[in-house]
Amino acid sequence: MEQKNLHVAVVGATGAVGQQMIQTLEKRNFPIGTLTLLSSERSAGKKVMFKGQEIEVQAAKPESFETVDIALFSAGGAVSKALAPEAVKRGAIVVDNTSAFRMDENVPLVVPEVNEEDLKWHNGIIANPNCSTIQMVVALEPIRQAFGLKKVIVSTYQAVSGAGAQAITELKSQAKAILEGASFTPEILPVKSDRKHYQMAFNVIPQIDKFQDNGFTFEEIKMINETKKIMHMPELEVAATCVRIPVITGHSESVYIEVEKDAVSAEEIKHVLKEAPGIVLQDDPSEQLYPMPADCEGKSEVFVGRIRKDLDRDHGFHLWIVSDNLLKGAAWNSVQIAESLLKLGLVK
Amino acid sequence: MEQKNLHVAVVGATGAVGQQMIQTLEKRNFPIGTLTLLSSERSAGKKVMFKGQEIEVQAAKPESFETVDIALFSAGGAVSKALAPEAVKRGAIVVDNTSAFRMDENVPLVVPEVNEEDLKWHNGIIANPNCSTIQMVVALEPIRQAFGLKKVIVSTYQAVSGAGAQAITELKSQAKAILEGASFTPEILPVKSDRKHYQMAFNVIPQIDKFQDNGFTFEEIKMINETKKIMHMPELEVAATCVRIPVITGHSESVYIEVEKDAVSAEEIKHVLKEAPGIVLQDDPSEQLYPMPADCEGKSEVFVGRIRKDLDRDHGFHLWIVSDNLLKGAAWNSVQIAESLLKLGLVK
Repeated sequence: MEQKNLHVAVVGATGAVGQQMIQTLEKRNFPIGTLTLLSSERSAGKKVMFKGQEIEVQAAKPESFETVDIALFSAGGAVSKALAPEAVKRGAIVVDNTSAFRMDENVPLVVPEVNEEDLKWHNGIIANPNCSTIQMVVALEPIRQAFGLKKVIVSTYQAVSGAGAQAITELKSQAKAILEGASFTPEILPVKSDRKHYQMAFNVIPQIDKFQDNGFTFEEIKMINETKKIMHMPELEVAATCVRIPVITGHSESVYIEVEKDAVSAEEIKHVLKEAPGIVLQDDPSEQLYPMPADCEGKSEVFVGRIRKDLDRDHGFHLWIVSDNLLKGAAWNSVQIAESLLKLGLVK
Repeated sequence: MEQKNLHVAVVGATGAVGQQMIQTLEKRNFPIGTLTLLSSERSAGKKVMFKGQEIEVQAAKPESFETVDIALFSAGGAVSKALAPEAVKRGAIVVDNTSAFRMDENVPLVVPEVNEEDLKWHNGIIANPNCSTIQMVVALEPIRQAFGLKKVIVSTYQAVSGAGAQAITELKSQAKAILEGASFTPEILPVKSDRKHYQMAFNVIPQIDKFQDNGFTFEEIKMINETKKIMHMPELEVAATCVRIPVITGHSESVYIEVEKDAVSAEEIKHVLKEAPGIVLQDDPSEQLYPMPADCEGKSEVFVGRIRKDLDRDHGFHLWIVSDNLLKGAAWNSVQIAESLLKLGLVK
């Protein structure tokens, strides 16, 4: 990687993902000369540690992006829509972790293990996919390359940290109340801005994001559309059911796929995944070895296991995919995109 | 229902399911003259309330079943294998909630809403299916009747009470320890008799029951084989991924199905399920209405929602199915079988 002293900005620096972005930039020793931390007016003034120094968070405004080389956005779609074009206008490359630009045909949607090449046609903004999509395509792409891919059906088991820091607090305080027999009032989950809120501790909520008119949630449609875009497969059949469960960090996915090639074995799938970038194969039933969110928290890889051939269809396989939704699902994928931009010489 | 003063025995009377069986017999005002409560030597001597009277639990032995008309077994497969034939020898009809006889071709496997008629060819033992199977077939059977059924792919979200009372205690104490920052040692889940045990609180374990050599767990194979047997559809394609989550009671299932008939709409599926026995339709995205385990605990019905047509396949549909695994999944289905036996005049 070319060493530069870049000016990097993190927008949403006090949020659950923003905090992970800052820690990941530090851990990766990303070549930063200046780090600007931005947030809403409400969080401005807070102090955040980076490489042993305190940095004061400032309220984000168009002028904040003067001299910025790379801006990592994770402060909600409205902030990205308003400020990402302002950052680009001032010469920054934006890596946006919201859904604001993901399906914009002028914006590449990138998971470096899958479609790093798409960075080459960026127009200032690069979109970071939805957390549940990222971990799935990392596992699907090597299978597609080796055996082709026709169909995907996924049911998710998603952690509350995907709904932000307030959702983590709500899950913990609810669990405590239930264990103590105390009362509580749900206020955040499943969707803070939706009308009804439900118990999350010791419960399952089959709603992530709001509903579309067709009965699917936006989260489900994101998984469907983003998977097709990232993998360059508009014809791929993808179906998703997205479900929130009482886990703090780490999304799990039960995935059924159908490959193109005949007579593929589960062992061949395992072999391909074992050699693939960004994946840790954890698949040994005789040792009760399979991925679980409690083991994946804080790790940057995608963990895959429970790989088995369908008992009815020669082309069918089942997989179990787990990853830290705040890292590979968000902060790490964003920083990884920034590293790819440097590697490809795309940062002027 | 013919009124009789029956002699009923409950084997496993002190367990999680046994307790629910006794409460269900009382709630349904089942025509009991004598109630005999049986258990292992270890639990013998405990007292259990039934209709305001204390009944002492006795150690189960072959002679315990003299004069018993109906014996409800839920004390593990080994107890059923040893004692169910002894009960039948003494004239009792056995309703067995373990997996001991489920796939025996001389034993009907019954969910009354689906195949009550199979009770007519019983040979003394009637098997109660696995909890996760029961709630699924209750929802699938009316769809099969109306539109035919070709394929089922299910991913489960199963509560710990399916692993017994000790698993409930373990989940609660682990959750408390994690919230307080204390240490803990997993000892029960995922499978008490398996070698390794894992954190369940705020985690997901993709293993229920032990593994077979083909990479599927016994729980998954049970769902596959039992569904085909109950629905009389050996040719039905069924695939299952069974997953334990940190919920105390109430199994949830994300189910993809393909029907035979062309051009069926989601509205037609909803209409059929709304009219079907034992089902409560909870499906209104505009009101954020869908089934959740916290709402289904203590209720005997199967709750179905999130019904939507697949975006790629005309014959494909997605469903979300929730039920109390201790009631419809176990105790209530067993008592319901006993009620059907009376209704059909099969208790001499």
